[in-house]
Amino acid sequence: MLTNGHCKLHLIFRKVLCRYHHIWNIDLRFRPAFLGAIMQATGNQPPGMLPKRNDYMLKDIKRMGKYYQVPIKATPEHLQRLLVPLSLGAMRFITAIDMTQPLFLEAVSRGFWIRFWSQHEDINQPASILSVAARTGLSSEQAQKLLEMVSSPAVKNRLRATTDDAMKYGAFGMPAIVAHFNEEQHLFFGCDRIELLASIIGEKWLGPVPSLPNSKM
Amino acid sequence: MLTNGHCKLHLIFRKVLCRYHHIWNIDLRFRPAFLGAIMQATGNQPPGMLPKRNDYMLKDIKRMGKYYQVPIKATPEHLQRLLVPLSLGAMRFITAIDMTQPLFLEAVSRGFWIRFWSQHEDINQPASILSVAARTGLSSEQAQKLLEMVSSPAVKNRLRATTDDAMKYGAFGMPAIVAHFNEEQHLFFGCDRIELLASIIGEKWLGPVPSLPNSKM
Repeated sequence: MLTNGHCKLHLIFRKVLCRYHHIWNIDLRFRPAFLGAIMQATGNQPPGMLPKRNDYMLKDIKRMGKYYQVPIKATPEHLQRLLVPLSLGAMRFITAIDMTQPLFLEAVSRGFWIRFWSQHEDINQPASILSVAARTGLSSEQAQKLLEMVSSPAVKNRLRATTDDAMKYGAFGMPAIVAHFNEEQHLFFGCDRIELLASIIGEKWLGPVPSLPNSKM
Repeated sequence: MLTNGHCKLHLIFRKVLCRYHHIWNIDLRFRPAFLGAIMQATGNQPPGMLPKRNDYMLKDIKRMGKYYQVPIKATPEHLQRLLVPLSLGAMRFITAIDMTQPLFLEAVSRGFWIRFWSQHEDINQPASILSVAARTGLSSEQAQKLLEMVSSPAVKNRLRATTDDAMKYGAFGMPAIVAHFNEEQHLFFGCDRIELLASIIGEKWLGPVPSLPNSKM
């Protein structure tokens, strides 16, 4: 089974899937995609455009974060920032990582998540990107080299290709997860389909914070 | 604890909450609301307006129905019909039931659900409404009398009031559930927040089809 996630700012989905990585024994791959392009191509609009939905999301993100034990923080100002695509820099950097330093992919992806969703800081500018890279164990030479790659056609084309892939699977927004199981592909949208995903791949949902079955080891 | 649901076509939420009714020992109340008015007042649009989301919803409803063991059927034609508000007749009839025959409320509500979501038939016209009523044990005299009430100012005003109530709680679409717990109100939108609702009211989520703890009786 291969779970192939096209995630921009994948909220709670990412963390919970990481917790289940070894319990379900899935091949978990993070693939960056540019949300702005997906929204434009499919005609989708940010949910926070609707004031009442924006109010709801503020409360919902807070209680979902608490229940799933994920350090997400939602403020009105932060949700407003989501209306403008500000993640292209981060997504291109993750793409460069994926192409040349895949071992750092999960740590860098997590670094951007924390910086954006927990600390509410920029993830688009070079200084922001280097700050995330420095905390993941990448040397400053490696980080600088990756940053230079970001504007190369190779990286831009690769990100365009993974974004196109996401849309071929039917994505119209993020977070989007594609589960490859029994030669079929199943798209899941939103952070609230993990229990359903488990049932599709024949695994058991053990709640938001499962424990590894150590007793059997 | 009072769970106070403003439900139009409440999909899977309704059925699963009914299963938990006596397990969680909640006071479960169904309250009709007119979705068309809510969508207009809040500026919301049906999710199926977006073609890609429409494609996704078709698949998602199918697999959610299977997992939750709810006889929901989704076809492209049926989802298209959701773009036009066609439930006003049903909602007014449910309102009249709520005012005069509350014991029939759950059965009639379920009847409309099955007719609309499983059989894909109209729930707006008098003949459709009488057909649902006949299957719930209401006499034809009772049903006829309720049908006459539907166009009365009392029923129209009551439905308007419950719809306004739903919006005061923050609803911008359906299904919407309001949990009253510890003197606080918690709004839940969508059919995928029942596990979260359980955590808020201090109850345990036992999956889509829980069994009553008979062994302890």
